Amino acid sequence: MTAKSQTSWTGDVAGLLRVGEDFVLSGVDPSATPGYGSDKKQAAQDLASGIAELDLLQEKLFAQSRVGATNAAVLLVLQGMDSSGKGGIVRHVVGSVDPQGVSLASFGAPTDEERAQDFLWRIQRKLPRPGRIGVFDRSHYEDVLIGRVRDLADSDEIERRYGAINEFEREVAASGTRIVKVMLHISYAEQKARLMERLDRPEKHWKFTPSDVEERTRWPYYMAAYQTVFERTSTEHAPWYVVPADRKWYARLAVQHLLLEALEDIDPRWPSAGYDVALERERLAAT
Amino acid sequence: MTAKSQTSWTGDVAGLLRVGEDFVLSGVDPSATPGYGSDKKQAAQDLASGIAELDLLQEKLFAQSRVGATNAAVLLVLQGMDSSGKGGIVRHVVGSVDPQGVSLASFGAPTDEERAQDFLWRIQRKLPRPGRIGVFDRSHYEDVLIGRVRDLADSDEIERRYGAINEFEREVAASGTRIVKVMLHISYAEQKARLMERLDRPEKHWKFTPSDVEERTRWPYYMAAYQTVFERTSTEHAPWYVVPADRKWYARLAVQHLLLEALEDIDPRWPSAGYDVALERERLAAT
Repeated sequence: MTAKSQTSWTGDVAGLLRVGEDFVLSGVDPSATPGYGSDKKQAAQDLASGIAELDLLQEKLFAQSRVGATNAAVLLVLQGMDSSGKGGIVRHVVGSVDPQGVSLASFGAPTDEERAQDFLWRIQRKLPRPGRIGVFDRSHYEDVLIGRVRDLADSDEIERRYGAINEFEREVAASGTRIVKVMLHISYAEQKARLMERLDRPEKHWKFTPSDVEERTRWPYYMAAYQTVFERTSTEHAPWYVVPADRKWYARLAVQHLLLEALEDIDPRWPSAGYDVALERERLAAT
Repeated sequence: MTAKSQTSWTGDVAGLLRVGEDFVLSGVDPSATPGYGSDKKQAAQDLASGIAELDLLQEKLFAQSRVGATNAAVLLVLQGMDSSGKGGIVRHVVGSVDPQGVSLASFGAPTDEERAQDFLWRIQRKLPRPGRIGVFDRSHYEDVLIGRVRDLADSDEIERRYGAINEFEREVAASGTRIVKVMLHISYAEQKARLMERLDRPEKHWKFTPSDVEERTRWPYYMAAYQTVFERTSTEHAPWYVVPADRKWYARLAVQHLLLEALEDIDPRWPSAGYDVALERERLAAT
């Protein structure tokens, strides 16, 4: 594929990162760079060349959707602990695509209105339309992550949710949306360094809240909740990818790679004109 | 202001472009470059430096909004004839800002659901939240532009709308949103060239529809409808700017300049921490 031939990726990168059977989160090294054969400097160049490629693929898909030639879309689900770099992915990977082709949804604590509905209600409403790359900055998985760790729902309800998520995602995939689920995996030590940086730099103070420290003390419970998520919801139609994220440059490049693969798999083409080009040229010339 | 000092702008640019009393659209040269003292090459450099500036201002505003320190937002309303460059503004000016800080809404022909409501209903729902730059690609003004030219509503209703728009925008401005309304003004000849290019290049065929030629034949009626819009709705709290747009580089730079001015006027600052930084550093260090 183009994405691979032009860069320093080697092997089946998606395969390396994909959560398969017998996956164990604690066995993943957050500072590793699986499948990438070069360094940070080369990565900057590869990211730049991928930007143009991603942009072009997305524009073709958008064009097809505008003439009703496709139902395809891409949905990137981003999960990860605080400071794992979700915002950086949005900015540096997805931010390079024409804003008209992107729909971004951030899911914080649910509002009262949202809480009164099923947990998937607010998610359903933010699904990307055909031709778009949709990005979920946090997602329905919060309802089985913080939901589980903080006992925000009883255990029967948490259990029910895994099945509900799989069913929901099966329908979304069947409607033409490629689902790419990414956990940005940082180490406990790296999170400490990143949170400390937020405290050290006044222009980053707004990104820190005291509850970040409390959440951090629950780290092992979150890792266990992620492990369960992977076991229960990494499916053929909506696989999980665990992306080592202690090196931001690697995580960004890897997510870009996954998005490129999803779009290449859709293989969008410029649509042919639904009108007589020569005739329209004449009509226009006469004005 | 910074935006001016670092670039080739001279004089009160916003003042030059603003629709004031006695404004006559037909007196504006779409190929002019009011207030800009240099050429296309320099403009590329100025646009690049403005990108960093816009990004920083927006991030500060976003930071303030996140800690509840501001209600301010910016709303850019983009209007213009087909091929006037609205999409290019979205891509090259607004696309440089962190996607998390931007909310983009495109208004096409209203759906049945939208048609059953007042014309401002769908607009209200897409207003930017505090801290964001909202962009309307077409807007409520379509309801007094195509609405008037194509007789989509009776004349009493069209008349009512001007007042309703002013009242609506007054409320939006009072809530803290700086409204910047821009008409990208191209010439009749330039539109022909741009539409012809869409027919000449297969990868642009999807951007053309035969109705573009019909709409073009109504050009004088659209210009008259715009003239009326300017006379009735260019207010202190929501002024119109007519930006000559035959030169894309000028239009992009001018709109960037208007956005920079709006943000500089808000004057966002990094918020101070709402917690004890030293204490939090200790708590974090202990984990």
